Amino acid sequence: MKLPGQEEFDISNACENVPVGEVDSGSGSGSSPDGPSNTDSRELGVPKDPLLFIQLNELLGWPQALEWRETGRWVMFEEKLEVGAGRWSAPHVPTLALPSLHKLRSLLAEGLVLLDCPAQSLLELVEQVTRVELSQELGEQLQALLLQRPQHLIQTTRTRPCWGSAHPREASHDEEAPLKEQHQNPLTQKLPPGAEAAAVLVGELGFLAQPLGAFVRLRDPVVLGPLTEVPLPSRFFCLLLGPPALGRGYHEMGRAVAVLLSDPQFQWSVRRASNLHDLLAALDAFLEEVTVLPPGRWDPTARIPPPKCLPSQHKRLSSHLREVGGSFGRRRAPAEDRHSHRLHAPSPELQRTGRLFGGLVQDVRRKASWYPSDFLDALHPQCFSAVLYIYLATVTNAITFGGLLGEATNGAQGVLESFLGTAVAGAAFCLMAGQPLTILSSTGPVLVFERLLFSFSRDYSLDYLPFRLWVGIWVATFCLVLVATEASVLVRYFTRFTEEGFCALISLIFIYDAVGKMLSLTRAYPIQRPGSLTYGCLCQFPDPGGNESQWTRTKLKDRDDILSVDLGLVNASLLPPPECAQRGGRPRGPSCHTVPDIAFFSLLLFLTSFLFATALKYVKTSRFFPSVVRKVLGDFSSVLAILLGCGLDAFLGLATPKLMVPREFKPTLPGRGWLVSPFGANPWWLSVAAALPALLLSILIFMDQQITAVILNRAEYRLRKGAGFHLDLFCVAVLMLLTSVLGLPWYVSATVISLAHMDSLRRESRACAPGEPPSFLGIREQRLTGLVVFILTGISIFLAPVLKFIPMPVLYGIFLYMGVAAISSIQFMKRVQLLLMPAKYQPDLLLLRHVPLNRVHLFTAIQLACLGLLWIIKSTPAAIIFPLMLLGLVGVRKTLEWVFSPQELLWLDELMPEKERNIPEKGLEPEYSFSRSDSEDSELMYQPKAPEINISVN
Amino acid sequence: MKLPGQEEFDISNACENVPVGEVDSGSGSGSSPDGPSNTDSRELGVPKDPLLFIQLNELLGWPQALEWRETGRWVMFEEKLEVGAGRWSAPHVPTLALPSLHKLRSLLAEGLVLLDCPAQSLLELVEQVTRVELSQELGEQLQALLLQRPQHLIQTTRTRPCWGSAHPREASHDEEAPLKEQHQNPLTQKLPPGAEAAAVLVGELGFLAQPLGAFVRLRDPVVLGPLTEVPLPSRFFCLLLGPPALGRGYHEMGRAVAVLLSDPQFQWSVRRASNLHDLLAALDAFLEEVTVLPPGRWDPTARIPPPKCLPSQHKRLSSHLREVGGSFGRRRAPAEDRHSHRLHAPSPELQRTGRLFGGLVQDVRRKASWYPSDFLDALHPQCFSAVLYIYLATVTNAITFGGLLGEATNGAQGVLESFLGTAVAGAAFCLMAGQPLTILSSTGPVLVFERLLFSFSRDYSLDYLPFRLWVGIWVATFCLVLVATEASVLVRYFTRFTEEGFCALISLIFIYDAVGKMLSLTRAYPIQRPGSLTYGCLCQFPDPGGNESQWTRTKLKDRDDILSVDLGLVNASLLPPPECAQRGGRPRGPSCHTVPDIAFFSLLLFLTSFLFATALKYVKTSRFFPSVVRKVLGDFSSVLAILLGCGLDAFLGLATPKLMVPREFKPTLPGRGWLVSPFGANPWWLSVAAALPALLLSILIFMDQQITAVILNRAEYRLRKGAGFHLDLFCVAVLMLLTSVLGLPWYVSATVISLAHMDSLRRESRACAPGEPPSFLGIREQRLTGLVVFILTGISIFLAPVLKFIPMPVLYGIFLYMGVAAISSIQFMKRVQLLLMPAKYQPDLLLLRHVPLNRVHLFTAIQLACLGLLWIIKSTPAAIIFPLMLLGLVGVRKTLEWVFSPQELLWLDELMPEKERNIPEKGLEPEYSFSRSDSEDSELMYQPKAPEINISVN
Repeated sequence: MKLPGQEEFDISNACENVPVGEVDSGSGSGSSPDGPSNTDSRELGVPKDPLLFIQLNELLGWPQALEWRETGRWVMFEEKLEVGAGRWSAPHVPTLALPSLHKLRSLLAEGLVLLDCPAQSLLELVEQVTRVELSQELGEQLQALLLQRPQHLIQTTRTRPCWGSAHPREASHDEEAPLKEQHQNPLTQKLPPGAEAAAVLVGELGFLAQPLGAFVRLRDPVVLGPLTEVPLPSRFFCLLLGPPALGRGYHEMGRAVAVLLSDPQFQWSVRRASNLHDLLAALDAFLEEVTVLPPGRWDPTARIPPPKCLPSQHKRLSSHLREVGGSFGRRRAPAEDRHSHRLHAPSPELQRTGRLFGGLVQDVRRKASWYPSDFLDALHPQCFSAVLYIYLATVTNAITFGGLLGEATNGAQGVLESFLGTAVAGAAFCLMAGQPLTILSSTGPVLVFERLLFSFSRDYSLDYLPFRLWVGIWVATFCLVLVATEASVLVRYFTRFTEEGFCALISLIFIYDAVGKMLSLTRAYPIQRPGSLTYGCLCQFPDPGGNESQWTRTKLKDRDDILSVDLGLVNASLLPPPECAQRGGRPRGPSCHTVPDIAFFSLLLFLTSFLFATALKYVKTSRFFPSVVRKVLGDFSSVLAILLGCGLDAFLGLATPKLMVPREFKPTLPGRGWLVSPFGANPWWLSVAAALPALLLSILIFMDQQITAVILNRAEYRLRKGAGFHLDLFCVAVLMLLTSVLGLPWYVSATVISLAHMDSLRRESRACAPGEPPSFLGIREQRLTGLVVFILTGISIFLAPVLKFIPMPVLYGIFLYMGVAAISSIQFMKRVQLLLMPAKYQPDLLLLRHVPLNRVHLFTAIQLACLGLLWIIKSTPAAIIFPLMLLGLVGVRKTLEWVFSPQELLWLDELMPEKERNIPEKGLEPEYSFSRSDSEDSELMYQPKAPEINISVN
Repeated sequence: MKLPGQEEFDISNACENVPVGEVDSGSGSGSSPDGPSNTDSRELGVPKDPLLFIQLNELLGWPQALEWRETGRWVMFEEKLEVGAGRWSAPHVPTLALPSLHKLRSLLAEGLVLLDCPAQSLLELVEQVTRVELSQELGEQLQALLLQRPQHLIQTTRTRPCWGSAHPREASHDEEAPLKEQHQNPLTQKLPPGAEAAAVLVGELGFLAQPLGAFVRLRDPVVLGPLTEVPLPSRFFCLLLGPPALGRGYHEMGRAVAVLLSDPQFQWSVRRASNLHDLLAALDAFLEEVTVLPPGRWDPTARIPPPKCLPSQHKRLSSHLREVGGSFGRRRAPAEDRHSHRLHAPSPELQRTGRLFGGLVQDVRRKASWYPSDFLDALHPQCFSAVLYIYLATVTNAITFGGLLGEATNGAQGVLESFLGTAVAGAAFCLMAGQPLTILSSTGPVLVFERLLFSFSRDYSLDYLPFRLWVGIWVATFCLVLVATEASVLVRYFTRFTEEGFCALISLIFIYDAVGKMLSLTRAYPIQRPGSLTYGCLCQFPDPGGNESQWTRTKLKDRDDILSVDLGLVNASLLPPPECAQRGGRPRGPSCHTVPDIAFFSLLLFLTSFLFATALKYVKTSRFFPSVVRKVLGDFSSVLAILLGCGLDAFLGLATPKLMVPREFKPTLPGRGWLVSPFGANPWWLSVAAALPALLLSILIFMDQQITAVILNRAEYRLRKGAGFHLDLFCVAVLMLLTSVLGLPWYVSATVISLAHMDSLRRESRACAPGEPPSFLGIREQRLTGLVVFILTGISIFLAPVLKFIPMPVLYGIFLYMGVAAISSIQFMKRVQLLLMPAKYQPDLLLLRHVPLNRVHLFTAIQLACLGLLWIIKSTPAAIIFPLMLLGLVGVRKTLEWVFSPQELLWLDELMPEKERNIPEKGLEPEYSFSRSDSEDSELMYQPKAPEINISVN
C-alpha cells in the first residue's frame, strides 16, 4: 500500500537519467566526452577532471583609483556580485551574448596562449604574461597592477558580509600566502578535495593602445596568493585588458571565458589542448552546442534558476552523434531509453531458479555474506537521528492503528497489542529479513480486512480470536507455498494500474473511515438544538420514606413529550449526574445523559490536526527557516499535530473521547491470556473453513508486501546488498503465525515509513557547487537502526499513562491526513484532475505530449469505474472477497491491451513483462515515422511558474 | 486604506515598462527598430507592420508515401505538434541550435531569394520557385508535390481535435479556395485583422541531388489556398528541401526561419529588404542579439514557458546603442527609467494654481467637457456584468460594515443606515465626482475612528449623534478649507512608507477585531466544562399559595457552590426557560441561561467562512475550470463564503447570534427621527469642542480619500478623462455634512472595491497570439455603472427579511479574510517574511539586489517599531489621536533620510518630491561606478518554480 507523503520520501535523485556523480565532478571524461578535434580514446576510463572554481576579477575605477574587484564566480552556475546589496546573487544559468563569444575568439586568436606554463607563483606568472609584446615601462606598470590584491566579497554564514582585503593598497606585492579570510571562506568547505581554481581578469586600462589577451594553463596548479577568494591551486589564468572604448565588452568577454571554463566538455578539451588551434576548436565545439533564444522573445537579462536536472553528458554525446552520423538505428533510442527507465530491469533476485525454495535459499546465501557488515555499517552518527525519527513515526503509527484496530475489533486488539506486536514482529524482521531497511507495521489493507473478518465473525457469532488464529495458520501455510514456488517473481505483473487501484481504494477507505468515525461522534454526543428540548436535568433524592415522586409526560402542542414532575416533599439538587448517583440520588431529565459541546469540539480537533499536519508538510518545501528546522517540522508533522491536538484538548479540559489504553501489561480484552486457545467456542470444522478467508488474506498480504518490496528495492536507490523478496515473504509468514497465536495484529511492510527510514539514511555528497543539488550516493544499509527502533517501541508499552490523554478525533484527523496525502501522490489523481482542466491550462506532462487527450480520459475513466466497482463490492456483504477483486485488477489491465495501443500503455502505465520484447517490432507505426520528435522531450519537465513581477500596488 | 485583494485587482499590465501595443502587433516600427543595415529613418511613424502567422509544413514519409504535415506554428511563441497526442503543445519560447542558423544562412546565400514576387496564387508561386535551377522533370515533380494539400491539426474548442484535409490525396491541384475547416479554425478569430501568414516548407526529398532553398516575399499578400491552416493572405514563403543526408537538419532550419520571421525586428528588416545582402544582414543582426545558454548547464530540449513580460523594443534598441556607441550619459538610463517608473510624474491635476479653489474650478472645467460621454460610454454589454459584480460587492460591504458599525455604536448606525447611506452618498458621488469610477464605502479607518468617538462620548456621557453631527460639520468645513487651499497637491508626500504603515495598522485592527469579537462570543455562550457545574435547569412553578420553595447553596468540597432545593409540594417541569417563563414558572439552575454548542459552532462558522473565502481567492489562479468560472468564483469569494456560512447555520438551525436588521424602514436606534437634532442633551460648547476630534478625523479622511485617489489615477491605468482630486474631496466634504445630519455612516473612497470596479470595466485586445497575455487598452470611464449599482443598493434596503439570517461569526470570518488579504498584499509584509528566511532561500527581489540585507532589515524593523507604537497609542486612552500619529509617519519617513542613502530609499520606498531632482547628482558614488550593473536587471523578475518532475512512486 502506498501511504502518505510517499512523494516527499521519494529519495532517489529526481533526475533518473542523469549520471549525477559524473556531472557533479564537473567533468565529462567518465562518459567519454566528444571534443571534436581532441577526442582521445585512450583517455576514456581515466580519473575524472578536478572540479573548477572560476572567479572573474574586474578592474574598476579607471581613470581615478584602479582596483580589482571580484564581480562574478562560477562552479556550475553563475553567481554575480550584487554591488549595491553587497551579496552574491542566487546561482543561475549563465546567459551570454553571441558577439562576446566571437570577440573573445578573435582576442584569443591574436593574443598570448601559454599552455603548460611552468610558473610557480603569481609573480612568475605575471612576469610570463607581461614579458611578451609589451614595452618595458608598460610591462612594469601592468605587473604592479596585476599584483595588486583584489577585493573579494566573502559571505560568511552571518548576515553581515565580510569584505576580504579591506585595505587593498596596503598589501605588499610579495605577500603571496593566502589570507585568513580566504581560509575561512565557507565556499572552501563546499568544494570537493582536489578542486582547482581559474582566475579571469578583465578591465579597461587607459594606457593600453591595443587590447591585450592572455590565456594560461599552468603545468602544475599553483595557489596564486589572494587572487581568488578560495585558497585553491589555480590551473587556468586569463587576462583580457584593453582601452576603454569597448565599454561593457570586457566584462562580457570575461564572463564568456568563465562560462566556457565551467562547461565540462570545453574544460576537458582545454586541459588536453596542445596548441592555440585546439583551444579555438574547443570554443567552436562549444558554439555548436549552445542553445539560442531569440532576442524578441526572451529578455537576455532574465536570470534562469538552475534546473533540477542537467543535460547528461551522455545525451550531449548522443545528440552530437545524431547530428554527425544520424544513423537510422540511433533514432530508436528514445523509446529504448524509456524502456530501460520505466521498467525495473529483471533483477537477479526476481529470476526463477526452478527449484523448491530455490529463491529463498539464494536470498539467504546472498544475505549471509553481508550479515556482519549489516551491523558494522551502522556506526555513523546519522544513524542516531534516523533512530529517533523512525521511532517517533513507528510509535505514532502504533498508536493510530492500535486505536483503530481496537475499535474495529471491539478490543480484541488494542493499543497495547499494537505496541507489543510491532516491537516483536519488527525486531524479528530486522534481524532475519532480506531487506532489513523495511519497517514492518500495521497497514491499511490488513486493517480493512481485519475489520471485515471481525464483522463476519460477529455476524455469525463466532469466537473471534480462535477463528483468527486458524486464518493466520492458513495464511502462513499459503505464504510458505508461495515462497516454495518462488511466486514472488510474479510481482512484475503488478503494473502501475494495479498499484494505483490498490492505493486509491485503500486511501479512499482511510478518508471515508476518518470522516465517518468523526461524524459518528456527533451521534454519540448529540448537538443540542433549540427545538430538541434536551434542556433540564435535576438530581432527585428519594423522600424519607424511600419513595420517589412520579414523573408525568405532557404532550405539548406539536412538540415532543416533556417530562414534568409533581414532586412530593423531596430534596432535589442540581448535582451533575455522576455525583448525584454517588450520593444516592437519581438524575432525572433529558439532558442528564448528553454532554454538550463535545461534538463541535471534536470536529474542531479533527480539522485542526488534519490542517496542521498538512500545513507542516508544506513547510518542508517553503522558503522559511533553515533547512534543518524545516526538515524537522516536515518529518514530524504527524507527531506535532497530535501534540497540538492533545494540548488544545487538555487546555479546554472537555470530556472528549480518548484513546483507550490498558493500565497494566495484559491483553486489552478482559479475560484472555496471551496465548489464543486453538478452538474456543467455535466448532472444529471452522479451523478448516478458515482456509477460505485465509486465501483472500494471503493474496492481500502478498500484494501489500511485494508492492512495497518492489518500491524499496528500486534501482534508483542504489542499494548494494540486494533485495530478498522470498526471504522477506518467508519472514512475514513466520511472524504471521506468531502474532496469530499471541492474538497480536498482523504485520507487513509499510511503504511510507520504510521509505522514510531509507531517506533518513541516505548518503549524499556534502561538497557541492552553489545552485547544484547534493548528489545521492546510496543508503546506509544495515540492520541496527531498525532493531533499536523496535526495541524502543517495545519499551514504550509503559507509555500508557501518557497515551490515554490522546483524544480520538485527533487520531481521526491524522488518518484523514494520511489518506489524503496517499491519494494525492499517485499519477491517477493527476489524471483525474485533468478531467477538470480545460486543455489550454493543462500542465505540460510528458504523458499529454504523447497520448491523445481523449485516450487519457478513457484510461482514467476505466480506472474510476474499477475503483467504483471495488467500492461497491466493499460495501456489500461480499466485502470480504475484496482482495480477490484487487487481484482482478491485473486481469482488467490485461484486457486493456485490446483497447489501447502498446505505445499508449507505455505512457499511461507500464508494460507487462511479455510485452516488453515485442514493442519495437509491432504496433508503433503511426508514432514511428515521427519517432524523431521524441528526442525533443526533455529529460526534465521544465514547468516553471509564471515569472513573478514585484510591483507594489500601494 | 488598502483593502484585500488589491494585488489581484491590480489591473494594469504586469509589465509596466513594455509598450505592449507595439509588441503585440509583432512589429517594432513604432519604436524605431534598428536593423543595422536597413535603418530607414523615414519609416519612423509609419503604421505598424501586420502581425505574422508562421506555419511550418514538413514533408514526411520519404521514400514511401510523401505528405505534407504542419508540425509547428508561431505567432509570438512556438507551438509544436505533439504527434502522438494529436494536440498542439503549450506555447513556449522557441530555442534554436546555433548550427541550424548558420546552415540556414549558407543555404539562403546560395539559394533563390525572390523579393516582391508578383505571384497571385499558389500555382504561380510554385511555378516561380521551381522554374529556376532545376531540370524540367524535376521541376514538374516538385510542383506536383508543392501543390499537394498539407495536413493541418485544427484544434477546435471541443476535446476531439479535427484533422484538416483528411484525404490529402483526393484534393485536386487547382482547388485553391480556402477550406471550410480553415475558416472554422478558432485561431483565425484570435489573430487581429490585417494579420498575414508565412509558410515554411521543409523536408527530405530523395530525388534531389542538391539542397534547394528559396525565400520569397510576395509583393501583395495572397491567400495560398490550403497551404496554411488559417485562410490569411501569405506574405512570405520559404522552401528548404534537400537529400535525406542532413537528417533532422531541415526541420531545424525550418524552425530557424520561422523563429526569425516571428522576431519583430528581423521581420521589419525583411519587409524592407531590397536584395539578398539585406536579408543576410538582418539575419546577422538577429544573431548579434540572441541569448546564448551553455550546453552543459541547460537542456536544449526543455521548453521555456512564455515570460509575462517581453523585452521591449525600446530596450533592445538602447542596448544596441550602448553596445555600439556606449556614450557615458547613456549609462545613467536605468536609474532614470526607475525614476519615471516609480514616481507618478506630477500630473496636471496635482499642480498648484495658487488661487483659492483654483484646483476645484479646474477640475470642474475639465470634467464638464466629458460629462455627456460619461453616460454614452456606458452603452456596452460589459457594463452589465460590472454592475452585477460591483453591486454584490457593495452590498456585502454594506452588510459587513453595517453589522460592525451597529455593534461599535450600539445601534446608532446599523445595517439599514449603512444601506441607505451607501446608496445616497455613492449615487451622489457618482453623479458629481471628478473620478466617477471611485466607489464610496465605509472604510476601515473611519470605522475605527467612529468606534473611538463612540467610546469617548459614552465614557463622558455625551449624546452621541448630536456630538457626531458637529464633528461632521467641522470636518466638512476643514475639508472645504483643504479644497480651497489646494492641499491635495501635498498627496505626493505620502510615500509607500506612509501608505504601508496606514494599511498595516488598519489591517491589524481588522484581524484583531475579527478574532476578538469571535472570542467574545465564547464568553457570551460559555463552553460547558465537566468541572464547571453548569448542569441542570428546571422550571419551577409556585405552589398553590403562591410561595416558592427556598433554594439553598451547598458548598461541596473544593468545588463551587451548588444549588440545591428543598422543594415543597410544588410542580416542576423541565420546560426550556422561555416557555417556562411564559407559563408562569421560573427557571432555576445554573444551566438555564447558557446555550450549549453555540461557541464552538460559531468558531466553526468563522473558520469555514474565512478558509472558504481564502480558498476561492486561490481558485482564480488555479488551472481548474474554464477562466470564466474561475473568475466568478474568485470575484464572488466573499459572497459565496457568506452564503456557505448561512447555509451551514440554517442546516443545523442553532441559535447563533444573527445580524440585527430592522424590520421596518426607520432608524435602527429606537426613538430617533431621520434628522439629528443639533444639540440634544449636550451642552452648547460641545459644538465648538467638536472641532478638535473633527481635526483628527479630517486628517484621516484626507489621507484615506487621497491615497485611494492616487492609486486609482495611476498612469498605468491609462485613464483618458483625467483625475479630480479637489472635486473628489469637495464631494466627500459635502456628503460628510449630509450623512452627519441624517445620522448615517461617513463615506470615503474604498480602494479595493474601486479597483475591482475598474477591473470589471477594463478594455483588452481580444485577438492575441497563443501564449501572449491579452493587452490592456484602457478603462470604460463612465458614471452609469456606479450610479446603477447604488440605486440597486438603495432598493436592497428591503432585503432585511433575508439579511436577518446571516450569522455574525460568518461576517467576522469575512473581516478576518479582508484583513489578512490586505496585510499580505503589501511589500512591508514581504520584507517581514525576509526576516524569517535564511539569505540562501530568499527570493530574487530587485530590492535585495541593490540594498544590503541588514539595511533592508533595519528599514523593516523601523516600520515594525512605528507600527508597534501606533498600536500602543491605539490601545491607550489617547487612542483618538491616532490619525495624528498616522500623519507622523510622514515625519518619520523624512528623518529616515538621515539614516538611509537616497539610493537605498529609492529601492525601499519612494523619494519625496524635492529629492527627485537631486538624486543623480549626489550620494550615488558608490553605486555609480557600478551603474552598468543595473542594466543587467531584467524588466521582469524571472522566478520560476523548480522544474516539476513527474515520477510515480508506486
